[in-house]
Amino acid sequence: MNVKFVFRITALCVFFTSLFMLAPAIIAFIDAQYRYGFIYLGVVAVMLIFSGIIFWLTRNYKPTFYAQEGFAATSLSWILMSFLGAVPFKLTGEIPSYIDALFEIVSGFTTTGASILTDIEALSRCNLYWRSFSHWLGGMGVLVFLLAIVPSAKKESGSGIFLMRAESPGPSVGKFTPHIRQTAIILYVIYVLLTAMCVILLLVGGMPVFDSLCTAFGTAGTGGFSVLNSSMAGYCEFCRNVVTVFMFLFGVNFNMYFLLLLRQFKSVFKNSELRAYVITVVSSIVLITLNIRNMFGSFSQALHHAAFQVSSIITTTGFASDDFEQWPAFSKSILFILMFIGACAGSTGGGLKVSRVILLFKSIWKTIIKTLRPRKVHIVRMDSRTVDASVTHGVNSYLAIYCVIILTSFLIVSLDNYSLGTNLSAVVACFNNIGPGFELVGATENYSHFSNLSKIVLSCDMLLGRLEIFPLLVLFSPDLWSRKR
Amino acid sequence: MNVKFVFRITALCVFFTSLFMLAPAIIAFIDAQYRYGFIYLGVVAVMLIFSGIIFWLTRNYKPTFYAQEGFAATSLSWILMSFLGAVPFKLTGEIPSYIDALFEIVSGFTTTGASILTDIEALSRCNLYWRSFSHWLGGMGVLVFLLAIVPSAKKESGSGIFLMRAESPGPSVGKFTPHIRQTAIILYVIYVLLTAMCVILLLVGGMPVFDSLCTAFGTAGTGGFSVLNSSMAGYCEFCRNVVTVFMFLFGVNFNMYFLLLLRQFKSVFKNSELRAYVITVVSSIVLITLNIRNMFGSFSQALHHAAFQVSSIITTTGFASDDFEQWPAFSKSILFILMFIGACAGSTGGGLKVSRVILLFKSIWKTIIKTLRPRKVHIVRMDSRTVDASVTHGVNSYLAIYCVIILTSFLIVSLDNYSLGTNLSAVVACFNNIGPGFELVGATENYSHFSNLSKIVLSCDMLLGRLEIFPLLVLFSPDLWSRKR
Repeated sequence: MNVKFVFRITALCVFFTSLFMLAPAIIAFIDAQYRYGFIYLGVVAVMLIFSGIIFWLTRNYKPTFYAQEGFAATSLSWILMSFLGAVPFKLTGEIPSYIDALFEIVSGFTTTGASILTDIEALSRCNLYWRSFSHWLGGMGVLVFLLAIVPSAKKESGSGIFLMRAESPGPSVGKFTPHIRQTAIILYVIYVLLTAMCVILLLVGGMPVFDSLCTAFGTAGTGGFSVLNSSMAGYCEFCRNVVTVFMFLFGVNFNMYFLLLLRQFKSVFKNSELRAYVITVVSSIVLITLNIRNMFGSFSQALHHAAFQVSSIITTTGFASDDFEQWPAFSKSILFILMFIGACAGSTGGGLKVSRVILLFKSIWKTIIKTLRPRKVHIVRMDSRTVDASVTHGVNSYLAIYCVIILTSFLIVSLDNYSLGTNLSAVVACFNNIGPGFELVGATENYSHFSNLSKIVLSCDMLLGRLEIFPLLVLFSPDLWSRKR
Repeated sequence: MNVKFVFRITALCVFFTSLFMLAPAIIAFIDAQYRYGFIYLGVVAVMLIFSGIIFWLTRNYKPTFYAQEGFAATSLSWILMSFLGAVPFKLTGEIPSYIDALFEIVSGFTTTGASILTDIEALSRCNLYWRSFSHWLGGMGVLVFLLAIVPSAKKESGSGIFLMRAESPGPSVGKFTPHIRQTAIILYVIYVLLTAMCVILLLVGGMPVFDSLCTAFGTAGTGGFSVLNSSMAGYCEFCRNVVTVFMFLFGVNFNMYFLLLLRQFKSVFKNSELRAYVITVVSSIVLITLNIRNMFGSFSQALHHAAFQVSSIITTTGFASDDFEQWPAFSKSILFILMFIGACAGSTGGGLKVSRVILLFKSIWKTIIKTLRPRKVHIVRMDSRTVDASVTHGVNSYLAIYCVIILTSFLIVSLDNYSLGTNLSAVVACFNNIGPGFELVGATENYSHFSNLSKIVLSCDMLLGRLEIFPLLVLFSPDLWSRKR
């Protein structure tokens, strides 16, 4: 493995992350919290020096770069970002335990939105901003950002696709253009524009500027950190409707927006993942609305909360408009199942991804046909293209690893002696990057009561979920550590 | 499809089931419960007439028989057996609702052991016997029994393997001998001998004759129906130890016993499924013993209950020696995971089966290797034989269908508005043919509080779990119903 190149990209990633930390520093100075401002600046300085040293050490790198290197660079970057990003929380003393701070920032970067904070509003604005911004950065991916920003020399241009594949969610990566840099730029332009629209609409709804920014970050990254203890319940209905719509929009494959820009409406309309996503969302909203109808004053109120919660859970955002822990079991079960499905591939959402679920169903159907009519040839198709058998097998294996990781984590977390519902939904909510689960990790609860061991396991689950397992496995490959740099 | 042959086998199956119903009739007459005796005799008569008519209607059948026919015959037989087997419970009035009676007998035949009875001891002995005997019959399979008993003409000899494949649990069926009838006979001889040994040892332990028989039926079929409200907690420690050992033994692939008879000790010792089974059982017992140590007076008491419960759950029997609902969450989580693993293929146990889990792990490992080193050729092996790619894909697809069925059933059952833990563990416990789950379906609870809809869904889950999904799917194949007989 080309370890030097891997470390170089990791250093580049740390460099850019440090620049983003200047914003909370500025906020701290505006709020006259000079000590916090200097802490952020100090961390930025350390990160700059660190990335400089690595850059200097790897100056004579070779530009060969393949899938393995992409996996290693992505995992190392995300882990390093998390360890460094947690430092300000610890140093400002607002999250006294480093494990807690790490949990919080991993939850941020992976757009999970699970929190260990019992009183969010007690946090200073610089920390609140950094916490919410980590969602935005992690949503589209810092390496994709890096691809968009850094002009790569021609000889290195092949490396980008491997980074993008490693960091982007879903079973396959769509390239808009043959040039990976252009693709990355287009992705970020769409991302910034949609986020800006969200901020503007929230401001129109009367939300304060700071809250609008943080809420938009949480929505865009499908993260779920809010600046209020009551999550979205504390804002007006209009703002919640805006968030509902934007959560849904950020759960759509970004390719669709690109196709819309190209006026290829037909391809968008015919896209089977988008169709399945819309059908799932609409039918879940209808079922939940009917189920919770009696809990609210009017049908429209029930619809409002059902739509918000469905949009929040399927996109793996995790905002709450109401304490859905109090809803009937049927509604909770629908939400529980949506947790697994997740958003579309190529969106900022987590979970299995709608396209993977479609492929799973198609491969189940193929197996059934094969069992009942052994001599019939059955080919799996999606969007009128033949799906290679290796893709369906890959999806099936992914499900198997997914189940093994969930059950193993569930076993370890259960050492804390909570209920089956709490333990299982905590693991499912973290692994699928949702945030809130049920019972003791429900909408109005948090993760502070777990032991450090469980917090570490859940942090790993969040990373495994965001990077879709495989990139992190490469870190255990002897290749990365045994050879000389 | 050869519908006539399918119906002929179904009729044969009903015929033999009716003969087994003579035993509870005799018990009723012994106990001077003449009304119950005549009810049983009446049902037997109806079943005899029914099978006679079908036999006459299908007299000019053709002996062609393939996988589809095997699936159809197995599913139809099991469904018919259940509908007819439930009738005595209803007619004697001891289970007033027919849905409840159906649930109880499906739970019996599928060796689940989930009960809707709140007071088991109130049942008359004839019903108790029939309930427990259904475990024994369903454990090894009534069609396998039929294969052993009915001398097939030479021209039909090919049909047996398809019946055996459809009814026997696990990803593949081992044939001891080239003659399927001989294999079926050997299986039943081992089954009867082990059951007899279990009865004798229970009698030695001082258990009454009737209780010994019923307990041995429940143990041999890895079912879990007991004749006491307190399940196994009401018997002596020696009896529980006997049951622990025999549950474990009935969870072993019966091929192993055949190999032992042939003195092929090396093949038994080297069998990877058996090794994995033993390792899983031992490590679970150790972990749970350490975890529940403080709840019992002595280490040996803790070990006793841990061993009993592990053996009971992994073999999907479902007997209880203690209210494990009160155990710490870690122990319950181990049991929850054992519920999925289940016993060995070719045993009387349910669940995914140990060999399937091994294959899943091997295919996961293959996917990891393939991702990290795309150019490396990796072949999956088991017991030093190459496993065909189609087998690993089949296992992966099986897991996918398995997950879909569990989540769908969970969604429907949650309409009853119980907790996530109750709903999920009820579905998992029924689908894997275990019986007790957690919370409201825990060791000391029962399934009576569920709605009829949930009971029907759970009954379907039990059948799907016992027959491993595919055979039942063939019933939806238009081939079975559209063509003329």
